[in-house]
Amino acid sequence: MIDYQKVLSEIMPRCKQSDRKGVVASYIPELANVSIDKFAMHLIDASKNTYAVGEATETFSIQSISKVLTLAQAFAILGSDIWKRVGVEPSGDPFNHLSLLEQENGIPRNPLINAGAIVVADILVSNLKNPKQDFLNFVRSLTDDPGINFNSAVANSEQRTGFRNYATANLLKSFGNLENDVATVLDFYFHQCAIPMSCSQLTKAFYPFMNQGKCLKNKTHLTQTQTKRVNSIMLTCGFYDEAGEFAFEVGLPGKSGVGGGIVALLPGKYCVATWSPGLNAKGNSKLGMEALEKLTTKTGQSIF
Amino acid sequence: MIDYQKVLSEIMPRCKQSDRKGVVASYIPELANVSIDKFAMHLIDASKNTYAVGEATETFSIQSISKVLTLAQAFAILGSDIWKRVGVEPSGDPFNHLSLLEQENGIPRNPLINAGAIVVADILVSNLKNPKQDFLNFVRSLTDDPGINFNSAVANSEQRTGFRNYATANLLKSFGNLENDVATVLDFYFHQCAIPMSCSQLTKAFYPFMNQGKCLKNKTHLTQTQTKRVNSIMLTCGFYDEAGEFAFEVGLPGKSGVGGGIVALLPGKYCVATWSPGLNAKGNSKLGMEALEKLTTKTGQSIF
Amino acid sequence: MIDYQKVLSEIMPRCKQSDRKGVVASYIPELANVSIDKFAMHLIDASKNTYAVGEATETFSIQSISKVLTLAQAFAILGSDIWKRVGVEPSGDPFNHLSLLEQENGIPRNPLINAGAIVVADILVSNLKNPKQDFLNFVRSLTDDPGINFNSAVANSEQRTGFRNYATANLLKSFGNLENDVATVLDFYFHQCAIPMSCSQLTKAFYPFMNQGKCLKNKTHLTQTQTKRVNSIMLTCGFYDEAGEFAFEVGLPGKSGVGGGIVALLPGKYCVATWSPGLNAKGNSKLGMEALEKLTTKTGQSIF
Amino acid sequence: MIDYQKVLSEIMPRCKQSDRKGVVASYIPELANVSIDKFAMHLIDASKNTYAVGEATETFSIQSISKVLTLAQAFAILGSDIWKRVGVEPSGDPFNHLSLLEQENGIPRNPLINAGAIVVADILVSNLKNPKQDFLNFVRSLTDDPGINFNSAVANSEQRTGFRNYATANLLKSFGNLENDVATVLDFYFHQCAIPMSCSQLTKAFYPFMNQGKCLKNKTHLTQTQTKRVNSIMLTCGFYDEAGEFAFEVGLPGKSGVGGGIVALLPGKYCVATWSPGLNAKGNSKLGMEALEKLTTKTGQSIF
Repeated sequence: MIDYQKVLSEIMPRCKQSDRKGVVASYIPELANVSIDKFAMHLIDASKNTYAVGEATETFSIQSISKVLTLAQAFAILGSDIWKRVGVEPSGDPFNHLSLLEQENGIPRNPLINAGAIVVADILVSNLKNPKQDFLNFVRSLTDDPGINFNSAVANSEQRTGFRNYATANLLKSFGNLENDVATVLDFYFHQCAIPMSCSQLTKAFYPFMNQGKCLKNKTHLTQTQTKRVNSIMLTCGFYDEAGEFAFEVGLPGKSGVGGGIVALLPGKYCVATWSPGLNAKGNSKLGMEALEKLTTKTGQSIF
Repeated sequence: MIDYQKVLSEIMPRCKQSDRKGVVASYIPELANVSIDKFAMHLIDASKNTYAVGEATETFSIQSISKVLTLAQAFAILGSDIWKRVGVEPSGDPFNHLSLLEQENGIPRNPLINAGAIVVADILVSNLKNPKQDFLNFVRSLTDDPGINFNSAVANSEQRTGFRNYATANLLKSFGNLENDVATVLDFYFHQCAIPMSCSQLTKAFYPFMNQGKCLKNKTHLTQTQTKRVNSIMLTCGFYDEAGEFAFEVGLPGKSGVGGGIVALLPGKYCVATWSPGLNAKGNSKLGMEALEKLTTKTGQSIF
Repeated sequence: MIDYQKVLSEIMPRCKQSDRKGVVASYIPELANVSIDKFAMHLIDASKNTYAVGEATETFSIQSISKVLTLAQAFAILGSDIWKRVGVEPSGDPFNHLSLLEQENGIPRNPLINAGAIVVADILVSNLKNPKQDFLNFVRSLTDDPGINFNSAVANSEQRTGFRNYATANLLKSFGNLENDVATVLDFYFHQCAIPMSCSQLTKAFYPFMNQGKCLKNKTHLTQTQTKRVNSIMLTCGFYDEAGEFAFEVGLPGKSGVGGGIVALLPGKYCVATWSPGLNAKGNSKLGMEALEKLTTKTGQSIF
Repeated sequence: MIDYQKVLSEIMPRCKQSDRKGVVASYIPELANVSIDKFAMHLIDASKNTYAVGEATETFSIQSISKVLTLAQAFAILGSDIWKRVGVEPSGDPFNHLSLLEQENGIPRNPLINAGAIVVADILVSNLKNPKQDFLNFVRSLTDDPGINFNSAVANSEQRTGFRNYATANLLKSFGNLENDVATVLDFYFHQCAIPMSCSQLTKAFYPFMNQGKCLKNKTHLTQTQTKRVNSIMLTCGFYDEAGEFAFEVGLPGKSGVGGGIVALLPGKYCVATWSPGLNAKGNSKLGMEALEKLTTKTGQSIF
């Protein structure tokens, strides 16, 4: 029987004393103003016991972590038809997602790169009655927390400066892989990214992915097969062009965000979230990855 | 002494009887409705004599041919500073101008691919008082023809469907290589392309490029050195990824447009325009290229 | 308690009656002559019970499956220094491994693409006293089967026609990432691929990867951490540009070969091998992948 | 009437006093040992008058300049069938000729990049009785100089270290675009590059390209049409990914070599060669390009 609280308590001080904490994302003011010294871990196990260290109830912008949640909602709605519009292969490319999209005729490699997540957003805009509100409700339902909301200031910042996302959406549109207006889809997309959540909330939101699709309230959000498939996509595609490295060092399905958060999970065992705003060169939380590597090494548990 | 009228009269029937005339561009209705049987050639020599066959005074959409005219105006205004924002190398790439732009940090390869022409449009928007009107006046002045105008229907069609150009402009903006709003720059760009001109008007507009920068009225629009440089760019970059083929088969600097027009010139000797709306697989006028190949072969004249 | 024999017995007839069996590899005669109707599965569980259907003791050319075995041997020798010369990221690229290698200065993306496996071969040539014999002994030791041998006819065929591998090795050499002669390294490489093994032998050879590094005889070949890392590389990189698809459909670490074999494993539970010579468009055994998808679906077990 | 001797005499001192002379190629000792202070220009006009400054009769390794000469010989033998195996488009790519070759199924972009020149070498190996000797005789005949020879030390150096060329030739072979053995073709290729010639000899060798295919002795080596086409290829492809820049700054067809030589020509007017061993970042002679820019600017003559 592993004492997760003891493990987390050993990991935190070793991470916090590191003098190489990465660089806080600076492209929008709301992210740039976060202190690089923030650090949190939160773990929930299969028996719903929770363990925490650091600022585990303080919220931060989940950013790309939201892509797993929109994928789950769209997958639940569309079933496997979703794969007509987006692939399941790692992109393997540090720099040129537009190049790949252009070469591959507007079918994004996977739903966790920006182009793929924009296609998923388009699917939700087409299929939800009140897209933004309905997605927010989905997140609240997963988390069993009605207090979760969009941060409009963050969404608006991205709306003004996210030119590369506009380029991506227009390229998708030129290939016929966007049903709705670019502006409408990106409005949804910028909002989904602009949700503030804490590590504690994130482990709840991702609980279904380690629990065969069922949330803490035992409601089924995804089938067992769908859950397995979302997990496989997280493993192969969840960390940009560092997915192999994360699988190699940590060995868990997971997803990172530019706000410094990472969520990961060991199916049937636990779901864990980390927060440390300093990013490495690939855009993933530097200490978050190190903390998770220590977690799987110390516990001797991983999917491999 | 070459009898150009005789040469043109020999070329036309051989081109017109071809049963492989290419395919008319269909992405906007205004282009799709043009008859594939249209054919014209117009040539003006250094002594200002003119020679014509076919519908040489009927107008068609000049489209990408306009890129040489905006380049000339921007080059005249900015001088060699223009090359800080756009290169002079052939792109060599059939399909992926966005890829190249992404890899090369937002500096387009040359001013005759779309990305480069959008940067040039941005320069004119920044430097002209009334950008669209001032550019139109420049074309009228080159051509000595105040009747030249924009076709708003064509410009509006492109505005509604030119998603790839929106993608390109947003990507340029994300790299900081666009000073003005995407919408403003593309409004200018779609209008510059949407000018209807005839072969007869085009040879006048391009007369300065074969005459060391001086137009028919002897007004200097470009220096001799600038003229030489624009001509070199036309030769290496004027026909998308078929520039080598055009240099190889025809051996003249020139520029094609998706409306089926081509303008080419032999410095010090003549300027020639052709029109045949059927395009080959590379997007250049099929019969236009053949007619120009015959012209340089029959006359034994080319820059090589 | 899952009855694996029953599961395999249900899978085989459904696979064998498929009328879309893929295409047998034809680039060398030794592969082309194998009957497309061959089919086998062999599974060994954590208690060393074995289960089989079809021609499970008939040998076939293991080809790329060997790359995991050379990786294991080199990793055991060099430890993490091996990652200075080869990466751990999926290549994500269907067609252009030379392009990637060129762009990334001669460091192959991962050890399971050809370029990476050639670097691993080079490491073994440098570090083993009698490279080919010592590697063969390693495979015999893993498998506890002294009857395993090279098939020289297959190796020689590849030596005469494997021009792309010569191109790859020379490109590695030009970047300084090959210590030995191209000819020496490729002789080793062509031999490692040209080992005939049966499904029954392959599950034994791969037993350590599901058993924390220890073979059937309980000898430790890799540390627990090394084993986990090799497994993660198999998952993210084991199926060329179909790695995501295999993870998505099957959800096990594994490796395929152009001879029609696949080995996969569920850590702590079982190791399984399939053989069906017909390949899909990506070069992986078509029925082998389907059989493994059925295995994880029917058993409800996978790493996700 | 231009006084070419005066022009050359003005150019040389301005070039020689430059303190940014580029970097001498160092990958083989025979090139590395040449003094960076060498400088020569030699010009021959249509009346066969010659003009020279600097070490115009001192030989240096012509390297890639030879590609134009093998192209001319192969073109004369095969006629336009040569274009089935190699294209005429600029490659536009600084770094990845293997990538392009891979994407374009083994048809090199043009005969002046290494891959294309290796295909041309293969054609000559197939079509000449004694390939190396027959090519040497062709160069001697063009130049009217029986003293021209291979430098075997240079050829042998390349044979030992030219791994990238081996990679290229093997990739061509894998695509079926090499008829002969890799070793045989590269032996020819390394020898064609390893000819020492002086600027004075080079202007003679290239005289036919400015004289409609006829050499100084008035013998026809290429038809007028073939000559025009080789010139167009030199213009669009003669300077690697700096072809546009050379056309833009100089405005003449030409070809450079890593030994520091450049040959260029103004059809009907003159042929000129320069030598300065320091190369710029693109691998072209830095002062050679500057000298030629001055030549066309001072004389006001170029093809544009």
